[in-house]
Amino acid sequence: MIKKNVAIVGVTGYTGMELVRILSTHPGFEIAAVTSRSNAGMALQEIYPHLENTSCGLLPVTIPEPDLVARDSELVFLAVPHSKAMELASSFIELGVKVVDLSADFRISDEKVYAHWYGLKHKHTGLLKKAVYGLPEIYAQEIAKASITANPGCYPTSVILALYPALKKGLVKPQGIIVDSKSGASGAGREPRTATLFCEVTDSFKAYNLGKHRHTPEMEQELSKACGQDIVINFSPHLVPMSRGILSTCYALIDKKVSQGEITQMYEKFYRKNPWVRVMPQGRLPETRWVRGTMFCDLGIVLDERTGRLIIVSCIDNLCRGASGQAVANANLMCGFEAGMGLDQQPLMP
Amino acid sequence: MIKKNVAIVGVTGYTGMELVRILSTHPGFEIAAVTSRSNAGMALQEIYPHLENTSCGLLPVTIPEPDLVARDSELVFLAVPHSKAMELASSFIELGVKVVDLSADFRISDEKVYAHWYGLKHKHTGLLKKAVYGLPEIYAQEIAKASITANPGCYPTSVILALYPALKKGLVKPQGIIVDSKSGASGAGREPRTATLFCEVTDSFKAYNLGKHRHTPEMEQELSKACGQDIVINFSPHLVPMSRGILSTCYALIDKKVSQGEITQMYEKFYRKNPWVRVMPQGRLPETRWVRGTMFCDLGIVLDERTGRLIIVSCIDNLCRGASGQAVANANLMCGFEAGMGLDQQPLMP
Amino acid sequence: MIKKNVAIVGVTGYTGMELVRILSTHPGFEIAAVTSRSNAGMALQEIYPHLENTSCGLLPVTIPEPDLVARDSELVFLAVPHSKAMELASSFIELGVKVVDLSADFRISDEKVYAHWYGLKHKHTGLLKKAVYGLPEIYAQEIAKASITANPGCYPTSVILALYPALKKGLVKPQGIIVDSKSGASGAGREPRTATLFCEVTDSFKAYNLGKHRHTPEMEQELSKACGQDIVINFSPHLVPMSRGILSTCYALIDKKVSQGEITQMYEKFYRKNPWVRVMPQGRLPETRWVRGTMFCDLGIVLDERTGRLIIVSCIDNLCRGASGQAVANANLMCGFEAGMGLDQQPLMP
Amino acid sequence: MIKKNVAIVGVTGYTGMELVRILSTHPGFEIAAVTSRSNAGMALQEIYPHLENTSCGLLPVTIPEPDLVARDSELVFLAVPHSKAMELASSFIELGVKVVDLSADFRISDEKVYAHWYGLKHKHTGLLKKAVYGLPEIYAQEIAKASITANPGCYPTSVILALYPALKKGLVKPQGIIVDSKSGASGAGREPRTATLFCEVTDSFKAYNLGKHRHTPEMEQELSKACGQDIVINFSPHLVPMSRGILSTCYALIDKKVSQGEITQMYEKFYRKNPWVRVMPQGRLPETRWVRGTMFCDLGIVLDERTGRLIIVSCIDNLCRGASGQAVANANLMCGFEAGMGLDQQPLMP
Repeated sequence: MIKKNVAIVGVTGYTGMELVRILSTHPGFEIAAVTSRSNAGMALQEIYPHLENTSCGLLPVTIPEPDLVARDSELVFLAVPHSKAMELASSFIELGVKVVDLSADFRISDEKVYAHWYGLKHKHTGLLKKAVYGLPEIYAQEIAKASITANPGCYPTSVILALYPALKKGLVKPQGIIVDSKSGASGAGREPRTATLFCEVTDSFKAYNLGKHRHTPEMEQELSKACGQDIVINFSPHLVPMSRGILSTCYALIDKKVSQGEITQMYEKFYRKNPWVRVMPQGRLPETRWVRGTMFCDLGIVLDERTGRLIIVSCIDNLCRGASGQAVANANLMCGFEAGMGLDQQPLMP
Repeated sequence: MIKKNVAIVGVTGYTGMELVRILSTHPGFEIAAVTSRSNAGMALQEIYPHLENTSCGLLPVTIPEPDLVARDSELVFLAVPHSKAMELASSFIELGVKVVDLSADFRISDEKVYAHWYGLKHKHTGLLKKAVYGLPEIYAQEIAKASITANPGCYPTSVILALYPALKKGLVKPQGIIVDSKSGASGAGREPRTATLFCEVTDSFKAYNLGKHRHTPEMEQELSKACGQDIVINFSPHLVPMSRGILSTCYALIDKKVSQGEITQMYEKFYRKNPWVRVMPQGRLPETRWVRGTMFCDLGIVLDERTGRLIIVSCIDNLCRGASGQAVANANLMCGFEAGMGLDQQPLMP
Repeated sequence: MIKKNVAIVGVTGYTGMELVRILSTHPGFEIAAVTSRSNAGMALQEIYPHLENTSCGLLPVTIPEPDLVARDSELVFLAVPHSKAMELASSFIELGVKVVDLSADFRISDEKVYAHWYGLKHKHTGLLKKAVYGLPEIYAQEIAKASITANPGCYPTSVILALYPALKKGLVKPQGIIVDSKSGASGAGREPRTATLFCEVTDSFKAYNLGKHRHTPEMEQELSKACGQDIVINFSPHLVPMSRGILSTCYALIDKKVSQGEITQMYEKFYRKNPWVRVMPQGRLPETRWVRGTMFCDLGIVLDERTGRLIIVSCIDNLCRGASGQAVANANLMCGFEAGMGLDQQPLMP
Repeated sequence: MIKKNVAIVGVTGYTGMELVRILSTHPGFEIAAVTSRSNAGMALQEIYPHLENTSCGLLPVTIPEPDLVARDSELVFLAVPHSKAMELASSFIELGVKVVDLSADFRISDEKVYAHWYGLKHKHTGLLKKAVYGLPEIYAQEIAKASITANPGCYPTSVILALYPALKKGLVKPQGIIVDSKSGASGAGREPRTATLFCEVTDSFKAYNLGKHRHTPEMEQELSKACGQDIVINFSPHLVPMSRGILSTCYALIDKKVSQGEITQMYEKFYRKNPWVRVMPQGRLPETRWVRGTMFCDLGIVLDERTGRLIIVSCIDNLCRGASGQAVANANLMCGFEAGMGLDQQPLMP
């Protein structure tokens, strides 16, 4: 098979690092370029010694110059902060290069909502209209035709997959949904900050950004589509002293008389063509380690009849399924491959 | 000051270990006996090498025989599993020894509720009627007169302190409360099990016992008293890869038009005589490490007007405030001391 | 390619779990059987929920009966405790099945040394003579012809690869070698014990078995061959609060006037056909995370002229390179495959 | 008792934080000032929310201006980087204020050795001559008379206490000593750096600065005094994924025919007036958690007759015993108190 050339713009963060891990053994893609303004001129293994003697160790790190990158690549992964991403995306699209944007810049279709939550006016609203929300279980067909996909946020990936079927099928009320999420520290990025030092994170647990995390509108947008009405969600993120993994505990009020068995069956049916979503059998609840390094989204279902609530516990690996792995799935679809190509990693346990 | 003799029945678990830590520097209590059936005959420092050269290292471990223990002690801490505790408590009370029971046996005043959740008929319902729920911020006066106190569960301590004022003052609706709690692994005890091995817990996160954890009726009992009606709570515990600490995120629907500032003031006023409850200023959320090894209960308050919800984040140290420290506070009150005697530990940071 | 059938005897420990992870994507091997006396009758994914929707999830767990296992498999991995392994190995060899033994039973060629360190008389000394020590960098040719290989211990793998070249080339004195090793907790196995509970291991560090760890004679045997004389080593293992990884710091007295650059070159030359051994450039020291989940052995070299010592720091993943991955490498060679088939995993970072 | 006023110069690092923890319950000292250039003007609890409702929470943070600090304090703790410390120390001594310097500036009595290892000319060599090395077990009498003490480094504290008796008594050879040390991440300080982020430290282990760590000459200086000749040590520090704790494994060649029991007795005798040094009974090895938050130094002794080596394993809490606690012990002695005043903390377990 002739491989297609792709580029990673922004290789020095954790999502860039994870893109390298996944793409390095991908049968359909060849990494043609990796960029980083601060490390340009080095070999990749000088930044990441763990890549020595792997297929990517000697890749030269170059500057993130769209003209240069576009010469060799037909698709580019943008692993840069929001607001920078929209500029780069626009340049690459004009140069005829497909874009998978891992930032938030193209996730929110309503530019006013984007401006409200991100404190920033969107500068490429034309391109925004073309962007497809890159959640393969729901938008595989649209993604396959897209020139730009907005790779979902890590929290929204875990939450949308958990609640979409229940809302779509009218199992639960759209009002009063609460999402209590917990993430490993890699979600906080690789920039040095006191708050993410080892001694500040280990052996502790905290909540942050309650009621104002920027992933909220993304969940609301997609879940509103599921139930056909505008919904509002209580979203509460927390920081877990671990590297990878997100667990979201989602609470919704039951709106139909159903048994737990029926709900489980309904979920299994909904996701029967999507092997990455694993609906746990009754009585089992997922653990983030079961999905470490993989594309799996594990769902544990609890019908609490005492309180009339459906509780869905959802686990993903925030860096793989919640970012770089999902980006590769989108790239696969955009390039005519199977969604799962190169993404059959097993969980690393223990 | 002449110290009062006390005994620890069941010293080999984490709550027994924590009782030793606290009592060893207590100005009013002398540890007269520590018991453990499996380790009787050893010196305490043979089980716990960290106690060498401390005041308690040479204490002999004896068998948990009430007659023997009662000879030297006027108060006993029961750090044994539920069901065993009720038998021992009854014996000690008959022998004229005061009891602080760290198990669940005397927490649920309705024996039917106890039987339902614990799968066990209560054998000492007479004594159950006399037992006082040992939460000093609410029941200090009753505790001072009690011969037996039921030391609150770790999760309920964090939750009741968080929600009591809001329910008491009618700030929130009694219906639809959700409590999403996260605990360190010491809450799972010191018995060897595969599920609590280091490699099974570290770098992972999970939910467990959703909708059926035994601490649920305890929260419901106390919070029902706060609002004057029977309430039902969604309680979801989770396991954090850390040793100590509980963080509970509590969600309730706002029932009064108030500002966040007013809620904070109301909480500060409610707890103004209780220095252990620290109401965070607006914009700050607690972290479990801030209370490590202490009696503090830190409360972060968020009024989410978008969704009409009050969110209270509550942090305690599950072993100190949530178990052994609180037990000592109860013992202090039962013996005529200040609640806080010997309990002014600073958090160990980092 | 027609795959060869292999079996895993003893699938419920961490090395069994790791064998499943590696073999599940191996292009040349098919897992024909997995055994566990205690879990026989279950599907593998009932024991290991993380395997659902993977190629191995539905494998039936069977009893470890050699006759049954031998029907379908031409090679068997023994992931059982020592002393049990020698019996099983003998049975399988008699049934014409090749054996990779992950236990210590066939590592020590001198039965008296085995008896001394393991407190046990070897019962199959005939087979012991046939067994090849399965360290591919040194014994690839012998392994390729063997019917039984003794998979090296985790510590010895890290130590032999670190010191073999220096001793072979006479760079250092054979006397006075000190090896200070540090291992993650997965090396302690998956049996529930108080000492390996999360709360006993996390946020702490300890030494154990100083001067008497059973991996000592294995290192001495192989390194004696390297230098042509019987040597004695100080081996000190320690427990690190992490899951995977071994780092060994090896100290030897310089016996030749060489520069650090020359030593590095000599090591690079020695391992130039062995891509798994990565000799770090001067000034870089390895970290266990760089080899997580892989076959790499990273060597950091420091010539301390002030003290006349050569210090080699060696990192491996104890479960992959130090056990199951190396076992698969041996199986590859024994079956006529390339040593590295199916073993090109990238490190999982972070 | 009338308390003596002391000041902490440099309160925003981990040693400053630990000084606050210890001094806040000290019966003889009152914290009169805490300084931090970057946080001046705030209350201490604004920087450290865990201090709310403790005796120190409302202390104003001021600028580190010697004239101002000297007005209210008779002793000052310098918790600032080396080279800055020597300037401040000189100013405070001139102002008649006693100094406990937690930096390295006054530890090395030979200014040439200081210049060589720290790449810096000492500017206050007169004061250097007056400074006493603040290890109470060895220099208690000199400390009591000193106006300035050089608080020992964390690694040297663990190593000197481990090897001093053996060298003093001629049990081991002064040549060929190897010290392999492992430290928690708090030793790396609180400045934000990529290398000390949670995700870079957790679940990993590494060596660093082999053969060139600046604590080396400090060990050599003190241990040379013990044996009466200049010695050279191989010192190898490593980073453990934990917050607090140092474990040093020290190797020396036996020079006298003695039994393990005799060595243990000799150590017990040497430290019999020093309750902080706990000599473990034969067969027991220390764990860093046993000393967490305390002044203890736990020594495990192994005589390895097979290799002719004495191995001493030494554990301390790097922040308490290895820095701030030891600084308070020195301050105690310099102010005429018992060395242990206010320092009887119990280990926080688990």
